Order: sequence, then C-alpha cells, then structure tokens
Amino acid sequence: MSNTFGHLFRITTFGESHGAAIGVVIDGCPAGLELAAADIQRQLDRRRPGQSALTTPRNECDTVAVLAGVEHGVTLGSPIALSIANANTRPGDYASLADVPRPSHADFASLMKYGIKSASGGGRTSARETVGRVAAGAVAAKLLERIGVEIVAYVQSVGSIDAEGIDPLTVTREAVDATPVRCPDPAAAAGMEAAILAAKADHDSVGGVVACVCRGVPAGWGEPVFDKLNALLAHAMFSLPAVKGFEIGSGFSATRMRGSAHNDAFYRRDDGTLGTRTNRSGGIQGGISNGEPILFRVGFKPTPTLGRGQETVDYDGNPVHLEARGRHDPCVLPRAVPVVEAMAALTLIDAALAQRATARWPG
Amino acid sequence: MSNTFGHLFRITTFGESHGAAIGVVIDGCPAGLELAAADIQRQLDRRRPGQSALTTPRNECDTVAVLAGVEHGVTLGSPIALSIANANTRPGDYASLADVPRPSHADFASLMKYGIKSASGGGRTSARETVGRVAAGAVAAKLLERIGVEIVAYVQSVGSIDAEGIDPLTVTREAVDATPVRCPDPAAAAGMEAAILAAKADHDSVGGVVACVCRGVPAGWGEPVFDKLNALLAHAMFSLPAVKGFEIGSGFSATRMRGSAHNDAFYRRDDGTLGTRTNRSGGIQGGISNGEPILFRVGFKPTPTLGRGQETVDYDGNPVHLEARGRHDPCVLPRAVPVVEAMAALTLIDAALAQRATARWPG
Amino acid sequence: MSNTFGHLFRITTFGESHGAAIGVVIDGCPAGLELAAADIQRQLDRRRPGQSALTTPRNECDTVAVLAGVEHGVTLGSPIALSIANANTRPGDYASLADVPRPSHADFASLMKYGIKSASGGGRTSARETVGRVAAGAVAAKLLERIGVEIVAYVQSVGSIDAEGIDPLTVTREAVDATPVRCPDPAAAAGMEAAILAAKADHDSVGGVVACVCRGVPAGWGEPVFDKLNALLAHAMFSLPAVKGFEIGSGFSATRMRGSAHNDAFYRRDDGTLGTRTNRSGGIQGGISNGEPILFRVGFKPTPTLGRGQETVDYDGNPVHLEARGRHDPCVLPRAVPVVEAMAALTLIDAALAQRATARWPG
Amino acid sequence: MSNTFGHLFRITTFGESHGAAIGVVIDGCPAGLELAAADIQRQLDRRRPGQSALTTPRNECDTVAVLAGVEHGVTLGSPIALSIANANTRPGDYASLADVPRPSHADFASLMKYGIKSASGGGRTSARETVGRVAAGAVAAKLLERIGVEIVAYVQSVGSIDAEGIDPLTVTREAVDATPVRCPDPAAAAGMEAAILAAKADHDSVGGVVACVCRGVPAGWGEPVFDKLNALLAHAMFSLPAVKGFEIGSGFSATRMRGSAHNDAFYRRDDGTLGTRTNRSGGIQGGISNGEPILFRVGFKPTPTLGRGQETVDYDGNPVHLEARGRHDPCVLPRAVPVVEAMAALTLIDAALAQRATARWPG
Repeated sequence: MSNTFGHLFRITTFGESHGAAIGVVIDGCPAGLELAAADIQRQLDRRRPGQSALTTPRNECDTVAVLAGVEHGVTLGSPIALSIANANTRPGDYASLADVPRPSHADFASLMKYGIKSASGGGRTSARETVGRVAAGAVAAKLLERIGVEIVAYVQSVGSIDAEGIDPLTVTREAVDATPVRCPDPAAAAGMEAAILAAKADHDSVGGVVACVCRGVPAGWGEPVFDKLNALLAHAMFSLPAVKGFEIGSGFSATRMRGSAHNDAFYRRDDGTLGTRTNRSGGIQGGISNGEPILFRVGFKPTPTLGRGQETVDYDGNPVHLEARGRHDPCVLPRAVPVVEAMAALTLIDAALAQRATARWPG
Repeated sequence: MSNTFGHLFRITTFGESHGAAIGVVIDGCPAGLELAAADIQRQLDRRRPGQSALTTPRNECDTVAVLAGVEHGVTLGSPIALSIANANTRPGDYASLADVPRPSHADFASLMKYGIKSASGGGRTSARETVGRVAAGAVAAKLLERIGVEIVAYVQSVGSIDAEGIDPLTVTREAVDATPVRCPDPAAAAGMEAAILAAKADHDSVGGVVACVCRGVPAGWGEPVFDKLNALLAHAMFSLPAVKGFEIGSGFSATRMRGSAHNDAFYRRDDGTLGTRTNRSGGIQGGISNGEPILFRVGFKPTPTLGRGQETVDYDGNPVHLEARGRHDPCVLPRAVPVVEAMAALTLIDAALAQRATARWPG
Repeated sequence: MSNTFGHLFRITTFGESHGAAIGVVIDGCPAGLELAAADIQRQLDRRRPGQSALTTPRNECDTVAVLAGVEHGVTLGSPIALSIANANTRPGDYASLADVPRPSHADFASLMKYGIKSASGGGRTSARETVGRVAAGAVAAKLLERIGVEIVAYVQSVGSIDAEGIDPLTVTREAVDATPVRCPDPAAAAGMEAAILAAKADHDSVGGVVACVCRGVPAGWGEPVFDKLNALLAHAMFSLPAVKGFEIGSGFSATRMRGSAHNDAFYRRDDGTLGTRTNRSGGIQGGISNGEPILFRVGFKPTPTLGRGQETVDYDGNPVHLEARGRHDPCVLPRAVPVVEAMAALTLIDAALAQRATARWPG
Repeated sequence: MSNTFGHLFRITTFGESHGAAIGVVIDGCPAGLELAAADIQRQLDRRRPGQSALTTPRNECDTVAVLAGVEHGVTLGSPIALSIANANTRPGDYASLADVPRPSHADFASLMKYGIKSASGGGRTSARETVGRVAAGAVAAKLLERIGVEIVAYVQSVGSIDAEGIDPLTVTREAVDATPVRCPDPAAAAGMEAAILAAKADHDSVGGVVACVCRGVPAGWGEPVFDKLNALLAHAMFSLPAVKGFEIGSGFSATRMRGSAHNDAFYRRDDGTLGTRTNRSGGIQGGISNGEPILFRVGFKPTPTLGRGQETVDYDGNPVHLEARGRHDPCVLPRAVPVVEAMAALTLIDAALAQRATARWPG
C-alpha cells in the first residue's frame, strides 16, 4: 500500500532513481479539466535538480510525457499516466553501497525489509520519487484553482535563520521564487543562502522549516475522526523524505498556552458568515476546515548524504570511513517547496471529493 | 472513510458522546489470541473520566462488553465487537449549543459539513470517541506483546513545566501511573499537577506534550513511500482531538542542526547485528523501522471548553458571552497517555501485518 | 478485509450465529436522512427465521437496536451502529461439529484458514450473518428511494419449477410477498411450495434462482474497468452463502447468440432521451448503467445441512454417518429475497456516491 | 476506484486504446522474484490481436517495456511499471462515433457518466485495456507457480458448440494452444472455428463460454463474508468486457438439485489429509478454498461491434443505419483465455497475501 496516496483522487507513483523512468498514475481525476503538459512542467521545473548553486549538480530536465488520460487537452475521467525519463543516471556512484549502509539513510532498514539491496541509490526512498508527486499535485492544484483554492509554500527557516514578517494571507509564489532559497523575506533569504553555501563548502548539510498556507478552502472538508484534515496533511507531509516534525496553526507553542489565550473566538464577517479573527486553529477545527486559511509547518532534517567523512560500519560490522560520492543537495528546503505544495494539493482535492460524495444526498 | 483506521488490522469506531453506546469493531485480528475483557478494561480504566481531581467530573465506569469475535477466551479471526454503554449522559448541558458555536470546537465546522447540528455535545469529535480506540488498542497491544513490542507513553510537559531525566529505554507504565498526572519525573509531576489545578481554579485549561516510546519493534516495518511508519504514526496521533504538533526522534530540533551532527552512525552490537548509538532518527529511517526504539512526541492544545466566559458570537452573528456548562478536563494530558499508546499499538500492528503480507514469498 | 463491503457507503458486519449479538456499522451514510427503526425492521421481518412452514423452526424476532448515528429520527452523518440480539441460541446442537466437518459447509475450510474450530455453528459463514446486511440494506434503500430507485427481488425458480410471465417493469414487493415462497407467479408458487415441503419431508433440501430488478437507476453509475456495476453486483451476490451462479440481462443465453440478435439498438424516447427497446444488456453497458432497468439472477444451491444421513469422515478421517441436528431451512430461497435486495441496494448506493465524488467538478 | 484491482497485490491499469501507450503499475509484489520481460511477453502474445484468422486484423506486437521495479532480473519490492506502446492506431475509424452511440457498447453510458465523448474508440472499456491485466497476471502467475499453483483456462463453448471430455485435473496450456480457438477438444475446436468464420463471413459475431481450473491452491484462501474467494473471482471475471454470466463448480445446475445429491462428502486421502471425491463446490466452501481444484465458467456475449448494418439512432435521436469500420474480433473467446487466466492469477495472489497477513500470529 506504500505507493498509493489518496482515496478518491488517488495517485500511484513508480520508478527508481536510477531506472528507466519515474512517474505517476492518477486515478479519479474528474473528466473535463483542461490540462496541458505545461501546467505540470511548471512545478517540475521548480523541483528539478541543478536549478541553482544551492542544489545538487545532478542535472535533469525532468520533462513530463502524458501517456494517457488526456485527449485534445481535456481530461477524460480515465487514469492520467505521466512519465519522466531518468536522463542523467550514474549508478556507478552507488557501487560502494553494496557494502556500507549510509548513516540515517534507508539502506539498512530497506535490506531488513526486503531482504535485497537495491543497486539504485536509495531506491524508492530517494527524493527523486517526489517527481511523480509534484506532477500529480499540479493536476490537483488545477482542479482546486477552479474553486478558488490557492496554495503557497515557502522556506520559513534554514538552520538557525528564521524568516520574519511574512503574511500568509498575501504571500505569492512569485515572491517565493524571487530568491533561489524560496524565502519571501529577502534579508533572511540572503542569510539562508549563505548558510547553505557554508554547509556545502564544509561538505556538510543543513535542515530547516517549510511553511505553507492554503487559502480559499471552504468550510466542511475533512472528517471528524480518523481522517481529520490535519491528520491527512500530517500523513502527507511525513511521507516526504527527511521530515521530522509537523505542526498546524499554533503548533507546539499551543502546548504552553492556556485555553483562554488560545481559543479563536468567532465574529461576523461583513458578508454575514462567521469567521475567526485569530487563527491559532490553523483553519481546521475538530478535523474539519472552518473557512480560515490553513496554516502548517514542516520540519526537515539536514540531508544525511555528506561528502564529509563519517565513521560507521559496513554490513558485516567492520569499521569504515565513509565519504559520499552521489550528487546531493546541501539543503533540501528550496526544492521541497513545490513538493510540500503538491502534497497539500493532493490532500485537499481528496478531501474535497470525499465531501462531495458524502454530503447530504440527493442534496 | 472517517471512522475506520488501519488496513489489515482495521478498526471502525462508532457512537456519540450522549447516545446509547460507544464502541468499536476490530476486523483483521488473527485467530487464536487469548483475550479477556480484563485485558481491555485495564486501559479503559486509565482513560476513564473521573479518575482523579485532574480530570472531568463526568463519572463513567466505561465497562466493556464483548459482543462478538471471542469464544472461550480466544479470538476467532472474526470481527471483535466491543461496546461501552454511555451511563452518565447529560444532554441538557449542551442545550445552548443549538445557538452558539463554541470557540475552537468543531461545532461550526461540523454544521458547515453536515448541514445539521448534533444535539449530542461535540458529536463524533468529542474526546469520548477515543474510548473505542483504547479498547481496540488494548487488543493490538496484546498481539504486539507476543513478539516483545512494548509501548509506554507519558506526560513530557504541561504548560511550561518540562519533565527531565526520563530514560525511554527503561521507563515503565508503573512509573508513569505513579502520579495522577502520568509523568514519571516526580518533581515535574508535582509542578504539572499544581499547574492543572491552578488552571482549573481559574476555570481555564492548559496544554502539554505526551512522549511515547515503542521498544522491541523489529527492523523492516513501514513502507518507503506514502505509508512511511512515521507518516502512519503522524496520521494516527493527529487524528486525536486537540493535537497541534507531532515530531519524531530529533523532531524540530533537527531543522537547526547540520548533517554531520545529526546522522546516526552504525555500530556492531554484541550479537552481531547493526545498531545506532545515537537515535535522532527515532527508530525509523526512510519510513522503515530500523530496530532502535521508536520515539515521538505529541503536542496537545489546552482544552477549548472553558468555564470561564468567552466573548464570541452565535450562529446568527450576534455577540454572546459564553460560559461552558458541560463537564470537561482542565488538561487532557493525563488521560491522553493511554490514548496515545492505543494509537501507537494500532499503527504498529497494522504495519506488522502489512510486512507479513508483502515480505519475500513464499518466504 | 472480509467483513466490510463498499467504499463510500461502507458497512462492517459482526457477530457469530450463537454469540451475544449480531450487527452492523454503516459508515458514510449522508446526514439528514429520516430514519426510524421501523424502516429497518420491515426488511428484517421478511428475512427472519420461523416466518412460515417453509423456513427453519429457529424462531428469532430479530429486533434491531439503533446504538448510534441517529438522533431525533435523523441521521447525523456519523456511523450508524445497529445491533440485533441472538435470542434463541442452541450451541448444544453443534456439539458434534467438534469432530466432523459437515459436507459442503465451511467447517473444514475454516479450520484450515484459522487453525481453530469455532464452537458456534457455522461461525461467520452462517446465513445468520446476513441479518446485518439486511439492516444496512434498508438504510441504503431509503436513500435510493429519494431519487426514485426501487429494487424488487423474487423467487424465479425452485428445483425444476420456473415462474413465468413476471414483468420486471411492474412487479411489486406486495405481489412477491403474496405467497410464502415469494414468487409472484401464483401457479408456480404453489408448485415451489410443494417441492420445498416434499424436500423437507425427505429431510432433504432444494435449490433455486432469485431474480432481481432495480428500476429508476440513472445512467452513469458504475466504473468502466474493474468496478463495473455488473462486477460489483456479482461480487455482492456471490458474497452471499450458497450462491453458485450469477448472470445479468441475457446471461448465459447470450453465449449461444449472434451479435446481430443480441445487440440492444437505441431509440428516442418521448422525452427526447435515448433508450433501448430490448434490454439484453440488463441495464448496464461497458460496466456503466444506461438508464434501463437492471436485471440479474442469482443461483442458490440446496442447503447443505440435511436431517437425512450422510456418509462422510471425521477430522481424523474415520468414516461417520452424519445426521444434522441444527435447525435449518429446507430451501433458502424465500428468505434470500430480502437479502438479495439488500446487497443490490448497498451496491447501488455505493456506486451512486462514487459517481457523485468523481463527476465533473466543480459541476 | 475504477482502475485498481486487488488490495495487497494491487494493479492499476492505464491507457486508452488509441493513445500513446497502455500499461499497468503493480504495487505489492514481494521482492526477490526472478522476473524477465519474456515471462510477461509469453501471455501478451497469446492475447495479442492479429494472431490468427479468428481475431481482429488490428496487428499489434504488444511488446512490453519494464519501466521500474525490476533490477538485474529480480523484483525489488517497489512498484513494477509496465508499458506497451500502441503502435497500430487508427483513430479515424472511430470518427463516426462522435455522432452515433454503438448499440450494446459503452459509448452512450460513458457520455452520461463523464459528460464527454472520448474520440478514442471505446476509451477504457475497450478490450485493449486488458493488455495491462495480462501483463500483471503473468507476474502474479510467476509467484503462484513457486508454491505449485497452476491455472489453465480454455474455450468450453462457442455459440451452440460445446467441448466434451476435457479433464480439468490434467488439461494443459499446450493442449489449449494446439488449436487457434483454444479448445482442447479437437473435434469441438474444429466446429467452433467454423462457427466463428461463418459469423465473420456474415459480418456478425458469436459468443461462448471460457472454463478455468486453478490447481494446487491450498485450503484456507478467501474470506468467509464479503470477500469470499468465489465473490472475488466473480468480481474479477465480471470486470472483463462482454461477460454476462459466471458460475462456480456445479453453478446454475445446482439450483435444480437436492442437497443429498449435491453435497461433497469428505474422504481421507492417502496422505492423511481430507478431500472430497466430488467437487460440486468447485474448490471453495463458505468462501474459503478447501484444497480441491477451483473450477469456474465465464459466459461472454457476442462482440457488439458488427460490420453488418444495424438500425439505431444517433445522439439526437435520428434514425441511422450503422456499419462498423473499426477492426474487431468476430468472437472474443480465443483471446479471452489468457485474460481469464490473468484475472484468476491476480485474484488468487491477492487472497494468498491476505491469508499470510491475517493468519495466526506470530505463527
């Protein structure tokens, strides 16, 4: 069940990092959506490696091919199959992996699980798997746009440098992309860039936080028990490589507050509907969207692949000094931004279709 | 899909807080497990209201009845149906809810979703729904015990008071239950208790963090992509009422570290297997358990139900001063401990059965 | 996954034939449906044992209790839990089952599967399990009635006696219930009744066919590939005990026809929509409903439990002469009628909600 | 949910008949299976069009490309992605479909469902979709072979010509493939061939029955309630285009028998295990395999696409005389044989993995 996400708008990704292709099949996309390859390519380009000095030198154009599900630029209601060739593979870089499990990587745990060592660096736990997610997320986002839902993610922190003054109500993808680090606070962005390049110079890596806002989500999405919208988002974000923490709205800071300070009181908006002036709930109450912007943060650890040497042991337990050769990012944050947006879009569209299915009937 | 959790060991909970009964159906429990009602009752007693001055005065004995699936003290492989009568209901306490959505509660969002106001305080988003989870979790835990998996949760912080010096490798449920607040650091426990009673005296509430360790989980559970074991745990914990944050291993602190400081190097254990001396991975690498203890933390907001007055509006947008009458906990943390354990057990057993299903075959 | 049926309108049944209770949890029923216990009881009464000389003497009133999901006579959108107590159990009748697997029963296969012998006659494969299905089917039917879908099943044949002249466009449940055998052709019904009583007198049993029509199903339900509406119906009907065959529309007779004689040509109805004058497709083309009545037939084998002696062997392979003591039906057909209707309703409502979810969006 | 089959060994097919490619993603195949493209190609060649005078002249070599999931000839445990290019497309043949829904085809129902007319002849309901199933079924069969499960399907009847004397215990794929019609009774095969060619000469089509035997299935697969093994097989077979009937073991003939004549008494085999000498149960009792060969039959209608003219109406209701241009089979039976085998293999492997998951634990 590992490779499928969603119930009604359901994606299945496939592909090894160093195999022939990587891709995704989307099942459940309604018919009649105008969809061009360019709609998908745009987000793939934001995710692709080699886009700046901050990312891995592995250079992939990651051009999407639409194999099925779209005819004359319109979705048919059938599965949309998207494939992206792996152009720039270097399996030789991973030869040493046959002997040594990389620290804080999936090599050891995967061997325990499958009883087999994949020669293709990282196999399915490679960040390259997220290509399919981003492609599918672009389709989900296109559907969400039709009803006014807009998703913007950005880098909130890198190492100890935090962005300040970003207004989630107004931040745009353009502002995010204005810096290579994808932080819309220019001063912080400069510091983050320096921190990443410093880590790179040290053959080291650094972590950080991506924040995300989903605007225009109507009240009523998400389920009250196990499939709370926040639980689905947490699942989605924790399914990304390198994620160590997730919080929504007030997050962990809520644990130090009293209820009287934390509650979001209601008020009447000008249009007569109810809203909340504060949004410590992060747009979700009791697992169900309440019409306020959805706000969450995702914490990423520093990339475990290091050019810098590490003292560890091989599969037989013999001490080894390990220096990675594979091409890798000193910091995953800038490229994680479109991936977080994709998983948010996939989560929301699935909740939207579920709400359509089980709302009052016949209506 | 809201009311079912798990794929192979699958539970479906039912029941409103103020209806006839609350319960759970467990599908997928293997046959041949010795199971007595007492195995389940033990954890229900740890969760039940009215157990100390720190909890709601709603007093429910929460006695479990086994309706199906067990014969002569042994599971049959058929669905195990467990029902717990709601003895001490007071729907009258919730009469005012017809007019006013409680701040930071699910009332408003639920109305938007279902187009209906449930008269039964909180409906399915009530914390009382977790009774069924705890009952099912006790069955899951019984299965896990057979292969040496042990789960212990405890209160790590309440408000600004943090426990210190707790060793996740050795902490026991006995130590946890030694204080009514369920914190195995006695000094911190005393402070937490005082903080909760102070909030109660102010008709206010307070949040906190539950930490949990799962010991004895073998390497190889969890899936490398969407159903990473950490993603499943995040989903499980965020499906609990009042959760605002989740982190695993190093958690958000990892975002401020460099890779060289964060990586868990391997070493050879005395028995020849590989382990890691540090455990910033929290027992999971690439979504798959690696044989180290699984460590995570769950952040709970302060209870939104307050005896203290709040300024908000009714459904028509008219300002109201709201003082809650329903019985409620000033702090959910002490009673959340067995609930967190239950969700951890349910997540792990489902991953265990999935691994059984898809491991090398015929073996 | 055995005990759940449906994806969006999802039921989970529980209960052993000789345990405390039998029941069902329905998840996914939209809120706002008026629902009374009497709506459910009506179909349970048509299924209950002891209703005529043609059925088992086990007498159960099968009174439904609504544990959750309904408040003030209206569904809440939360799980509807229905429980029916087992009043008239006689586990002693099944004592000999500990030693001898009944021919053409599930005893032997169940032991191979679970490694355990259930003392409760037949366990989950008992026809008593269908109580929960009938209860849930009544809820599904209530939803379907709102949009004009009507389901009528009837006994088409018993042994070698076939009903004639039944018009599926007009047959009613009243006409069906006019005879105890539930065949709306009175002449055939008399013959069927005699055949059943003759088998009963011989301590033997007899099989037959149930036909079913679903009128008012709009075009567009069902999926074109794996979840064809006919495939879902086939799954549903074959999940009933004792079913050996299923056919839709022309059924097996189509295998002997040429395409020019089999095709259903289109014509224009008076209201301008398209229809077919013939209906060899049985209301489904390419897996999708086409607006014509859905027509199918389900073949049931003779009850395997026989008062008459049978030569077989015990679990150790020793020859035994087996005479059943348990109370049983000489022919399941009359009581199978509401069960077939229930499974048809459950299948259709699930397809209806799926179509709602994935139709053009936002509409 | 239309395009996925199976829960643990789960396939998702994609592709339109006249698009770029058609294919399948298999999720849940255990790691460590030796798998070559040739293993898959063998069954694709049995299914491919243009293989004899009895099939459509559309000539496709249907060469499979393995995009992911296999490395060095061994499965990795990750999704296996298989793609088959559509080489010989002629969308022009389907131009008239824009105006006229073909009788007994999915055109009309699909339009009602999706609100869109696919220009690609038949879209997903085209028999070409089964390419992906056959490819995936070959992988499932490879796994099943490891434990001695063998599946053989053959043509039992075409029109009014029935095969005789075929022993399901010994029939082989070689005997099946000895005639182009895939009937191992040579005399009947000759008659069937003549019947098909006669229908072809008349620009007409003819139906028939495929029989299938699964040998070596151990006792204990399948679930006792909704996921009975026979229900899963019925679902699988009815998901194929043109299927109108399904029966298992004695099938509809059981409806005319008495229980005393129908029951399969047990006996002790030489190896001490229990078996049944008769097999009217078709290898499944109470939904669970009992160790005897599984026997079923699938009834196919005559192909609805006819070169011969048909009187019908266009979408606007205007009478038209329709003569098909698309290339089509006068009889689907010979090519249906590997497709039925594929669906049987996919059903069995999924049941096998489910049994592994939920059997007594830890074992």
